[in-house]
Amino acid sequence: MTMLKLGMVGGGEGAFIGAVHRIASRIDGKYELVAGALSSTTEKAMRSGKALGIDPERTYSDFKQMATQEAQREDGIDAVAIVTPNHMHFPVAKAFLEAGIHVICDKPMTSSLEDAKQLKDIATKSGVLFVLTHNYTAYPMVRQARQMIHQGDLGELRLIQVEYPQDWMTTDTEHTDNKQAQWRTDPSRSGPAGCLGDIGTHAYNLACFMSQLSLQQVSAELTTFVEGRRLDDNVQAMLRFDNNVKGMLWSSQVAPGNENGLRIRIYGDKGGLEWAQENPNQLFFSPLGQATQLLTRGGNAYIDTGSHLVRTPGGHPEGYLEGFANLYTEAADCISRIKQGDRLEDVLEGSLMPDVNTGLDGLRFISAVIASSEQNGHWVSIKEF
Amino acid sequence: MTMLKLGMVGGGEGAFIGAVHRIASRIDGKYELVAGALSSTTEKAMRSGKALGIDPERTYSDFKQMATQEAQREDGIDAVAIVTPNHMHFPVAKAFLEAGIHVICDKPMTSSLEDAKQLKDIATKSGVLFVLTHNYTAYPMVRQARQMIHQGDLGELRLIQVEYPQDWMTTDTEHTDNKQAQWRTDPSRSGPAGCLGDIGTHAYNLACFMSQLSLQQVSAELTTFVEGRRLDDNVQAMLRFDNNVKGMLWSSQVAPGNENGLRIRIYGDKGGLEWAQENPNQLFFSPLGQATQLLTRGGNAYIDTGSHLVRTPGGHPEGYLEGFANLYTEAADCISRIKQGDRLEDVLEGSLMPDVNTGLDGLRFISAVIASSEQNGHWVSIKEF
Amino acid sequence: MTMLKLGMVGGGEGAFIGAVHRIASRIDGKYELVAGALSSTTEKAMRSGKALGIDPERTYSDFKQMATQEAQREDGIDAVAIVTPNHMHFPVAKAFLEAGIHVICDKPMTSSLEDAKQLKDIATKSGVLFVLTHNYTAYPMVRQARQMIHQGDLGELRLIQVEYPQDWMTTDTEHTDNKQAQWRTDPSRSGPAGCLGDIGTHAYNLACFMSQLSLQQVSAELTTFVEGRRLDDNVQAMLRFDNNVKGMLWSSQVAPGNENGLRIRIYGDKGGLEWAQENPNQLFFSPLGQATQLLTRGGNAYIDTGSHLVRTPGGHPEGYLEGFANLYTEAADCISRIKQGDRLEDVLEGSLMPDVNTGLDGLRFISAVIASSEQNGHWVSIKEF
Amino acid sequence: MTMLKLGMVGGGEGAFIGAVHRIASRIDGKYELVAGALSSTTEKAMRSGKALGIDPERTYSDFKQMATQEAQREDGIDAVAIVTPNHMHFPVAKAFLEAGIHVICDKPMTSSLEDAKQLKDIATKSGVLFVLTHNYTAYPMVRQARQMIHQGDLGELRLIQVEYPQDWMTTDTEHTDNKQAQWRTDPSRSGPAGCLGDIGTHAYNLACFMSQLSLQQVSAELTTFVEGRRLDDNVQAMLRFDNNVKGMLWSSQVAPGNENGLRIRIYGDKGGLEWAQENPNQLFFSPLGQATQLLTRGGNAYIDTGSHLVRTPGGHPEGYLEGFANLYTEAADCISRIKQGDRLEDVLEGSLMPDVNTGLDGLRFISAVIASSEQNGHWVSIKEF
Repeated sequence: MTMLKLGMVGGGEGAFIGAVHRIASRIDGKYELVAGALSSTTEKAMRSGKALGIDPERTYSDFKQMATQEAQREDGIDAVAIVTPNHMHFPVAKAFLEAGIHVICDKPMTSSLEDAKQLKDIATKSGVLFVLTHNYTAYPMVRQARQMIHQGDLGELRLIQVEYPQDWMTTDTEHTDNKQAQWRTDPSRSGPAGCLGDIGTHAYNLACFMSQLSLQQVSAELTTFVEGRRLDDNVQAMLRFDNNVKGMLWSSQVAPGNENGLRIRIYGDKGGLEWAQENPNQLFFSPLGQATQLLTRGGNAYIDTGSHLVRTPGGHPEGYLEGFANLYTEAADCISRIKQGDRLEDVLEGSLMPDVNTGLDGLRFISAVIASSEQNGHWVSIKEF
Repeated sequence: MTMLKLGMVGGGEGAFIGAVHRIASRIDGKYELVAGALSSTTEKAMRSGKALGIDPERTYSDFKQMATQEAQREDGIDAVAIVTPNHMHFPVAKAFLEAGIHVICDKPMTSSLEDAKQLKDIATKSGVLFVLTHNYTAYPMVRQARQMIHQGDLGELRLIQVEYPQDWMTTDTEHTDNKQAQWRTDPSRSGPAGCLGDIGTHAYNLACFMSQLSLQQVSAELTTFVEGRRLDDNVQAMLRFDNNVKGMLWSSQVAPGNENGLRIRIYGDKGGLEWAQENPNQLFFSPLGQATQLLTRGGNAYIDTGSHLVRTPGGHPEGYLEGFANLYTEAADCISRIKQGDRLEDVLEGSLMPDVNTGLDGLRFISAVIASSEQNGHWVSIKEF
Repeated sequence: MTMLKLGMVGGGEGAFIGAVHRIASRIDGKYELVAGALSSTTEKAMRSGKALGIDPERTYSDFKQMATQEAQREDGIDAVAIVTPNHMHFPVAKAFLEAGIHVICDKPMTSSLEDAKQLKDIATKSGVLFVLTHNYTAYPMVRQARQMIHQGDLGELRLIQVEYPQDWMTTDTEHTDNKQAQWRTDPSRSGPAGCLGDIGTHAYNLACFMSQLSLQQVSAELTTFVEGRRLDDNVQAMLRFDNNVKGMLWSSQVAPGNENGLRIRIYGDKGGLEWAQENPNQLFFSPLGQATQLLTRGGNAYIDTGSHLVRTPGGHPEGYLEGFANLYTEAADCISRIKQGDRLEDVLEGSLMPDVNTGLDGLRFISAVIASSEQNGHWVSIKEF
Repeated sequence: MTMLKLGMVGGGEGAFIGAVHRIASRIDGKYELVAGALSSTTEKAMRSGKALGIDPERTYSDFKQMATQEAQREDGIDAVAIVTPNHMHFPVAKAFLEAGIHVICDKPMTSSLEDAKQLKDIATKSGVLFVLTHNYTAYPMVRQARQMIHQGDLGELRLIQVEYPQDWMTTDTEHTDNKQAQWRTDPSRSGPAGCLGDIGTHAYNLACFMSQLSLQQVSAELTTFVEGRRLDDNVQAMLRFDNNVKGMLWSSQVAPGNENGLRIRIYGDKGGLEWAQENPNQLFFSPLGQATQLLTRGGNAYIDTGSHLVRTPGGHPEGYLEGFANLYTEAADCISRIKQGDRLEDVLEGSLMPDVNTGLDGLRFISAVIASSEQNGHWVSIKEF
């Protein structure tokens, strides 16, 4: 087992998601971090690189330079993790894809629909791997829920209730020194969506992932509750999926008492499922006319959908970092196979990793929600975008 | 303490809500059931009356006759409980109000908006008490939530998320011998709303009661999932209340795993509250920036909003029947005072009992939701109705 | 349906359990309260009787006089509820039993083992009904648990973990004006057991009721944490039941955060069960090797063990008062049959109501625990008492 | 930042805890695994080493050889992780300690009290670090609980209720091919304690760690429920701590429905705390007379007891592996300081890492419990051992 060489763009001092990606890459021992453009400020880039033990020679402040140089090195990185604010996802991903380096990119894929469409083309042409870290899709019980729905345990689906409330932006957090809040409320760095892009897309993605349904239309109401805030901080939407499945989606960053309350309930004519991110090792299954069952990760009724998903027995809680790691490990396995000569298409067969299509779908959703909200909740077809 | 004399219309053999009203009337020992038109079928009316120990002389099959005769008796009933299917609420209430007999009526108040408007006039002119049993408003922790919001514990309100899922009509229950399902899916008995009228109105009422806000506009999507069903079995709605408060409402009778899942979350700029009917002795309060608190009925942080609301100390669970009984006891106290000569207006000062205005508001809500759904989710103003 | 005539001894102004018994007697409409010796102070007895609408002529201050006179009346009471402090249970029960009046008595049955033994003889000879209100045995899900164990759903039993923590006596509550605390910590009124008698006996009784096992030996540690308190406020015990079943019992009145935390878990070689009083409509069942199931009162997997136990459908929570009422209703059904000429033995066949044997068993348990604790935890056989 | 060099003894193919230690060592990027004696079978050792990317030259089948050779290498390991069955902890730890290599050892420290005493002396003399992975002590909310108790939030402690039920050995698992069950029920590899040593010691350790109290006496009942099993599978104990604090401990491996149910409740005269391992990001705090509070890792009322303990914000669940990693990171920080010349005593000042004293205390507890059980529950003083 040789470790893959990983680079990172973004994720310097004080960043949240960069640290998460680094831990995720380490958990299963499949990557070593050897290069980085952790900040666009040279000094900060060097300081951050040093703190992470990256060779100064491979500590960059210019991601393009990093892409070029790493592509040329004999021992160049196998993959790059992109953990910048949203608006930089596109140019960075483009640079590395075009340099032939596999990309693991945080979500949303880009800050505009146009970028997303372009990136899809670029990625498709590149022939290299593009993984979008919609991490919640890689929790074991989410995978199990998807499998159960797939095999018909709920019968014909009818309803999807998904929500993702948080409370950390209940006041004007962006006017404190909270950098996370600052860029997330800045349209030039975050794109046109606030709460919608940050967490609404996770909720939407989870609904699609579990149900394997596509959204047809959305009727939405975006609100900005905090005075002076430049982007939405609350999203309400009614959803029409394929096959007359109806849904509701609520995401908010101004709901006191909610830390990271992603939660989904799906109902069919033969049963229902409920999963909540804050207690992710549990999945509640209610077969129609029978007692509700508590299914647990690694427990008696666990469906094994991949041995890498469960590192510890039932009752030993795995969480957010392990879910993230599952994607990193799946990517590593693909990359290793590609390095051994397998074709990308073959490697991706059966893969559940979110990709450019997922990313583009997310931007379409963002665009449709914004359009509907601007038209006073008019039902908007996602296909228009 | 003399017990009040109670009559009942509807609630014969096999009925659900009639039995609930009877227990509710007994819990605090303030009523004795002495007359009834429990069924419109004479034989069934007599059999039901006998089973309940009602004097055959005061067992009626014609509610108008009952209203007339009881009004004439020296020992006539003080109040009547109306527990028929929806379409009979109006004529029965009208008869008793016009006979000067106090009315305790199940919800929705009527099966049409027109009837509701008329009934409001009739009740207003009658000078007697009209109580609508929106029982969930009388749970102690619901009253506490209302009080906390009133005193500013949540700051300025922003969001209301309310839901009421059930699962008992996931299949075509109305084609079994389930009488509850039969009349609830029959427009001629239930009115134009199915799930919407049966439980959606409870959810709506709870949101308004707790928040003391009025709805301005609604955008809704009604669905009938079960083939052949004649009324809606799922309600999705986005809500715009006064003061830019936004809401979402979901009610369903086809969501497997949900027995009687009424649940509400309200958020303001200083805190959040969460209450769920199935564990009604608990209320979760999240003051912004502090730990979430578990408030309990009769517990350390309980706010006493009426000594009749708490019969047992914290930890001794009270439930659905006690909530219902709270309304009966409040009505009894009003009726007793009226019998002692107090004026209705004085007796009702400070009362939290749902009344004809509540009932009319419910029918307006039903009408607005139906109108919005028929117009493909167009935002409809409740004032139009 | 004619209502039975009920009398009450104890339960005057400010009492807790008296009010509970009265509500319990009313819920199913089978009793009317017509006589009472609610206090031994004449003035208080009269005031309390008046508040409850009892005829002054049948308001007594002397329970013996009440027993005699009611027995002589044509319209005398059918049954008496005894809700005094513990030390009065014996003389009052004796008086009514000897007067041929059915007795519904709060627990513990007596304040001494000797009294319990005598009372058993008296009750046995009397030929009338004696019901001990171990109310927790009458919750529907407790009955279901017992039935499931009986029918082998857990296989051979191995373990019983039962606990009953409260917190209301964490400080020296008895030195405030709390009357409940005053008599419960006064050996002359409560007997030799504090927390042990008040709630430890409930925990013990529940363990025996559910499992249908008898205790063989106990090793116990009684503690009084609050300085100056005259009786125990914390009970720890290890238990040896029949068939090598092992158990642990903890009850406490000084455990902050616990309101009324009766909770039991029973394990066999094929499954486990868990029930907690504060959410009594739920029962968790874990069949070995399968997912844990959530069973609910009136829900899909509910076992009907008596139609009177469930007044409302699943999801409409019933609680403490309904559990209590179940016993009152069972007693009413027995008394009615006896009045119609049935023999006591026949009437009690299959009855699950706690009786004098249950009461005596509780006192034996109290005695054995005290003995073991006095002998530094030596294992004591309950048969010695 | 240079990574420390880690070796491992035990943890070859099919092992559970070895994989856990490896992940824990990687999460914060402070160790690289460079040497191992993963099995005593040469072939298996080589295969396991290869799978983990360990240089064949540093893949040993003899741990003594490994200790000697690694101590001699310029680039020898800084620390060794011992993850063998219990009986090998002592000889392996001895070998590495005497070679001057820091030791991170799984619990229980040894399989006999004598070994534990010897190891304490050896470790003390060695001058190198010895860490015992009582991992549950390193969960952030456990640390917070300890801190809260320390600062008096509960007042004077009175009660400790600790339990650790599992169900995976409800049947004779050791007669399947389950290697975990095989060695745990084999006295020659596990020592004289089964469930007691495996998980009972965790429960005991957690109680001591949180409360900072020492056990004085124990009265215990060990049971073996599964026929033919050679060691206990159920532990019941009553505990007497310093300062008249009373406790109860239950651990079981035959309680169906329990996966890994470590749970502790501690009560003082001013409040109570409750923590459960399966939902480890929550801690319930009940200040006397106030509402119970839900404290969360990284949440509003979180007490920062070490920045390495929280990798993600509140609501992003961390679990078992992160708790384990916390110990590895604390050990890494100590070792790094020692490498920079700090003295062991200084490095350990304020450390909360379990050490040889903790390990010896655990063996004393095991010995006392066994002794008490053999003496029919006689109270045994832990100081006798």
